[in-house]
Amino acid sequence: MSTPLASLDVLEPEAIRRSVDAALDDFLTEKEEAAAAPQLPYLSGLVRDFLSGGKRIRPLLCVTGWRAAGGSGDDAGSVFRIAACLEMFHAFALIHDDVMDLSDTRRGRPTLHRTLAAHHAACRGPDEVEWFGMSAAVLLGDLALTWSDELLHSAGLAPVQRDTVLPLVSQMRTELMLGQYLDLHATGGLTDDVDATLNVYRYKTAKYTIERPLHVGAAVAGAGPEAMAACTAYALPLGEAFQLRDDLLGVYGDPAVTGKSRLDDLRAGKNTTLTALALRGADAGQTALLRRLLGDPLLDEEGAAVVRGLFETTGARETVERMIDDRQRQALHALDHAPFGADAVGALKRIARMATARNS
Amino acid sequence: MSTPLASLDVLEPEAIRRSVDAALDDFLTEKEEAAAAPQLPYLSGLVRDFLSGGKRIRPLLCVTGWRAAGGSGDDAGSVFRIAACLEMFHAFALIHDDVMDLSDTRRGRPTLHRTLAAHHAACRGPDEVEWFGMSAAVLLGDLALTWSDELLHSAGLAPVQRDTVLPLVSQMRTELMLGQYLDLHATGGLTDDVDATLNVYRYKTAKYTIERPLHVGAAVAGAGPEAMAACTAYALPLGEAFQLRDDLLGVYGDPAVTGKSRLDDLRAGKNTTLTALALRGADAGQTALLRRLLGDPLLDEEGAAVVRGLFETTGARETVERMIDDRQRQALHALDHAPFGADAVGALKRIARMATARNS
Repeated sequence: MSTPLASLDVLEPEAIRRSVDAALDDFLTEKEEAAAAPQLPYLSGLVRDFLSGGKRIRPLLCVTGWRAAGGSGDDAGSVFRIAACLEMFHAFALIHDDVMDLSDTRRGRPTLHRTLAAHHAACRGPDEVEWFGMSAAVLLGDLALTWSDELLHSAGLAPVQRDTVLPLVSQMRTELMLGQYLDLHATGGLTDDVDATLNVYRYKTAKYTIERPLHVGAAVAGAGPEAMAACTAYALPLGEAFQLRDDLLGVYGDPAVTGKSRLDDLRAGKNTTLTALALRGADAGQTALLRRLLGDPLLDEEGAAVVRGLFETTGARETVERMIDDRQRQALHALDHAPFGADAVGALKRIARMATARNS
Repeated sequence: MSTPLASLDVLEPEAIRRSVDAALDDFLTEKEEAAAAPQLPYLSGLVRDFLSGGKRIRPLLCVTGWRAAGGSGDDAGSVFRIAACLEMFHAFALIHDDVMDLSDTRRGRPTLHRTLAAHHAACRGPDEVEWFGMSAAVLLGDLALTWSDELLHSAGLAPVQRDTVLPLVSQMRTELMLGQYLDLHATGGLTDDVDATLNVYRYKTAKYTIERPLHVGAAVAGAGPEAMAACTAYALPLGEAFQLRDDLLGVYGDPAVTGKSRLDDLRAGKNTTLTALALRGADAGQTALLRRLLGDPLLDEEGAAVVRGLFETTGARETVERMIDDRQRQALHALDHAPFGADAVGALKRIARMATARNS
């Protein structure tokens, strides 16, 4: 049960990562030791493996938000446990997302439903193996969701902290699910409605990945309305920029670095701001070509190269890069007026650059 | 926000049902009124519809456990909200269970993934519609799970109650998921291992449906170890009996009364104590026939009649009926030594009869 707080540089990403990982490890070890059934350690081992690949961006923001709102050493154990709760929740979200997207790889490794299917390939036929993998992955996602909740319950929050933190976490969860639903609903029919894609980003990424983790951390430190509003002013543009960068990486990224296939999004016909802009800027011939290639489950590298070319000739790629810049600037600008200490402002600036200029 | 407590007969099932339904309705109405996104009322409407078909057995046990441990009017609002949390959690479990079982009907109506698919049939191809229904149902289950948690958080428990209730709810959730995993793992290969099937029942039904709801209610009332142990002594045999009855209803029940197809379990090749006993009692020819018919996705009523015949000639059906009687007797016997008031004992006896002699 050790979640040490390096007193010198509480906002150093590696230090935060270590403390959050220690909290996750403690929790899973408790689960494994208390397990009445022998299957539980197998399942928690899968969750442990899955967690090990994460970037810990939400925990980083949570701890930074706590610090920005004046959090100090006394609450450190709680805030790392809450940060671990957000990471466990994210594991749940990704596991189910991969099932819904029928993805084969995540973080450079097979997705969980693929791993589970492979573990059972010996004793079943191919259809059954597929079905088993999907079903077991849904269940493991459910388990991660309930465990994220246990991390929250056992974070040692005082009643006044619970009263602000719990509703924020609930809101974050509902917002993510709503974003997922909007996304799901939009898949299949390609749209040139740029605003609709940005609306999905608002829920799925800006609020979920940036704003709410900051809010949750800030709430642990007892933040007032002004600090909460400053978090929002920074988070929403940054979150959009983060997702726009993600879209570009999904199409142009190096799979060896991102750990993700750069064909999956194109094959799935995923609606992104990039595809919406391309459709808006395309002439009739280009539109027909885009509509034929995007969403083709058999799209190969050659076809993908044609799509990438169209993203460039229609100006869509360049517009997305410009949108990222604009939003990054807005986020940094918001920090100029934020009632945060210099260390937190510095950390948030580093995060803004990392989130928008990253290559993985 | 009204959860009235009829002072005359707090343990009358219809009165409990009305109070729990009022708590669920209040909660969903709050969600709909606070919704920022227009899609939320559509989603919560689906959850509302789904909830409307339930038997409320877990809420009934929760309130009865609370009463058995000496709960009184002061906590009534909390206990109904907690009972509503258990029912919302159960909705989550069923929604995901139907996805995993690929079931078409539940409670006499199309399953949620079927309904969601049908709502989107107009604008998509058949494969895509199927996939959309499954994905959206996974998501709606996730939403129900997080909402069950919100009901728990907002039940108005005092800190001392939270400290006992929350770990029990967490345990209940992990146990159910473990039971589901064991069940999933066993599907596909038919077993004659009767004990293995009873082990699944212990997690999936006895603990989840009977023991934990009683414990959770009793914990709200501040029950001591003796009362908790008495709940367990009653719950575990009753839970097995309940599940054994369920298996018989899945094969012999009247679909017009149960609301479930009586071919689904057979077609899925579901391992039950009934099938394990039949395989154990079968000669070589009967075994071959059972293995050919059980798990055949195209099994028709004629084939099902053959299977039913084999359940009888092998003595499996009769043994299951005897096992139900034995367990019902054990459960009733446990009440003779329980430190519960006469009204609670009376209610628990009624529940034991209802759960084992039911036809739906």
